[in-house]
Amino acid sequence: MLVALFAGDGIGPEIMAEARRVLDALGLDGLTYEEGLVGGAAYKAKGHPLPPETLDIARRADAILFGAVGDYDCDALERHLRPEQAILGLRKELTLFSNLRPAKVFPQLADASALKQEVASAIDLLIVRELNGDVYFGEKGIRTTADGLREGYDIMSYNEAEVRRIAHSAFRAAQVRRKKLCSVDKANVLETSQLWRDVVTEVAADYPDVELSHMYVDNAAMQLVRNPGQFDVIVTGNLFGDILSDQASMCVGSIGMLASASLDANGKGLYEPIHGSAPDIAGQGKANPLATILSAAMMLRYSLGRPEAADRIEAAVAKALESGARSPDLGGAMTTREMGDAVLAVL
Amino acid sequence: MLVALFAGDGIGPEIMAEARRVLDALGLDGLTYEEGLVGGAAYKAKGHPLPPETLDIARRADAILFGAVGDYDCDALERHLRPEQAILGLRKELTLFSNLRPAKVFPQLADASALKQEVASAIDLLIVRELNGDVYFGEKGIRTTADGLREGYDIMSYNEAEVRRIAHSAFRAAQVRRKKLCSVDKANVLETSQLWRDVVTEVAADYPDVELSHMYVDNAAMQLVRNPGQFDVIVTGNLFGDILSDQASMCVGSIGMLASASLDANGKGLYEPIHGSAPDIAGQGKANPLATILSAAMMLRYSLGRPEAADRIEAAVAKALESGARSPDLGGAMTTREMGDAVLAVL
Ligand SMILES: CC(C)[C@H](C(=O)O)[C@@H](O)C(=O)O
Ligand SMILES: CC(C)[C@H](C(=O)O)[C@@H](O)C(=O)O
Repeated sequence: MLVALFAGDGIGPEIMAEARRVLDALGLDGLTYEEGLVGGAAYKAKGHPLPPETLDIARRADAILFGAVGDYDCDALERHLRPEQAILGLRKELTLFSNLRPAKVFPQLADASALKQEVASAIDLLIVRELNGDVYFGEKGIRTTADGLREGYDIMSYNEAEVRRIAHSAFRAAQVRRKKLCSVDKANVLETSQLWRDVVTEVAADYPDVELSHMYVDNAAMQLVRNPGQFDVIVTGNLFGDILSDQASMCVGSIGMLASASLDANGKGLYEPIHGSAPDIAGQGKANPLATILSAAMMLRYSLGRPEAADRIEAAVAKALESGARSPDLGGAMTTREMGDAVLAVL
Repeated sequence: MLVALFAGDGIGPEIMAEARRVLDALGLDGLTYEEGLVGGAAYKAKGHPLPPETLDIARRADAILFGAVGDYDCDALERHLRPEQAILGLRKELTLFSNLRPAKVFPQLADASALKQEVASAIDLLIVRELNGDVYFGEKGIRTTADGLREGYDIMSYNEAEVRRIAHSAFRAAQVRRKKLCSVDKANVLETSQLWRDVVTEVAADYPDVELSHMYVDNAAMQLVRNPGQFDVIVTGNLFGDILSDQASMCVGSIGMLASASLDANGKGLYEPIHGSAPDIAGQGKANPLATILSAAMMLRYSLGRPEAADRIEAAVAKALESGARSPDLGGAMTTREMGDAVLAVL
């Protein structure tokens, strides 16, 4: 099976290197790797954040391990040339519509959250975010109003097939968890949300064992602070999912620890840490590679059919934390490489 | 001067009654009051959530004190008849474009937040939310795609005049605070946000004493959990403001305590507690009236030119809290009326 490795910008190469060392240490046979350029790095080398040769590797691959994209040098470029287009393009081109972001406190890091310990330690939720639609991919631009004013616009939309597809993903995820699904929208204001709510409710008929509720996004943002332990699975659109999943991650406290999967309908997926490219600390060995290493574990489990290897990585990360491995974001002083070493030592 | 009192649904009438008692106790002369129906209550009596007679009072008034709208009975109505249309309609018809939502921990309630006390007690921020544009008021509907699928859509947009107007509000607010303004958008994905960012940056030239920064909304949702003390004034659009201002309120902990103002260009305003109509506890005397009482104080300060009266109310609320006044949401057992009594006792 082919694994694409796209390190990207900023701290991407450093954290990817550690994930690769961990994958190699597992001694799995039948896996081959191909590297590709994405983001600002790809723009600088090839003139595009997602060059054709990278997209070609991605199409051929069974799974993609992704570092991070984002580079201040590219902020002034036209939108279609900015680093973010690499990740948006991969999601769209490969129909990776289902973004799974588990958030759970690591017992070893129970005090890392800004939330009170009893509130944070109750967090065990999964956000299922739709990635192929919404205001992200609708028609957009700058136009001139009748009065001659500049006006920016973006069309938000979802059709019933798009909502149904992600709703099924979410209900299935809830079935193997605590069987509670909360769909988040803004149906009191948005027609897109009203359709979303109607279709999710229709799909619920296929999953009588899952308890479905609906919540407005403003309330969800409050409840994720007040009592995040109330949630099992949350399903929501691309824009609200972007906001709420980052919020939920921060409630856990250790954003350098959280992995995510973006899946198509056949189990092919892209795996990435939820943190960004952190250009301010790039190249200094300060980045925590554990989120990327845990993303590799998710990849082995969901796309590569190697759940035992995934278990081994996750257990090794837990042991490394127990033995005191801490990068600066976790209040320690270990380098990126030393964090990787700590995991390898257990493996 | 004329004050409109719109109590609305759910707990609206109970909390409004206490605010009215407080206003009366101040013995201010020159103020007259007119009550009007809004929300589900107005729909049931008049067939519309914002009947013409209510809108007429609102237009004539110098300020509006608003309770809350929202009623489960109305959930199945067509969108234009739902209770929320009362508040959306007032904002739009009266051009109340600038929503000010201060969030600050009450020292007497320092432990109320789900955030660690040292994180929560650092909160002293003001969210300035645009209320007249964005995806709230663009064209919207349900259409059929070429493949015969139902599709919901909503157009998000801002023109430069709308952004400039709210940016000036926000810069002026920052000038009388700690002189830091953070503009929140999603310019890496949305053209509406790109225009927003460009125009806010242009307006900044008029306020060299204010330090302007920009932040993506997903990062802002994280930072409001991680370190909300870093913010002074946040300015953002209608949709992001809806989400972030509720999140920030919950970070403070005592959502039953927070007031808000929605202002037009001339200082006329609508004042309301940030909590909702809470139909589940309506009529039981369990609601905390302090957010409405504090909204009345904001009204006296910003629209009615009576800052001393505002100070008196705010001091009385602080004293009442000090003397132990606690409604159920604050961990106590006092009724709505008893909370009002506690404030009146100090006045
Ligand atoms: C980089 C950006 C376009 C992206 C998004 O908004 O989806 C990121 O925030 C994410 O959540 O993966
Ligand atoms: C009731 C609803 C339409 C409203 C909004 O979304 O603006 C509310 O959430 C608010 O923030 O005042």
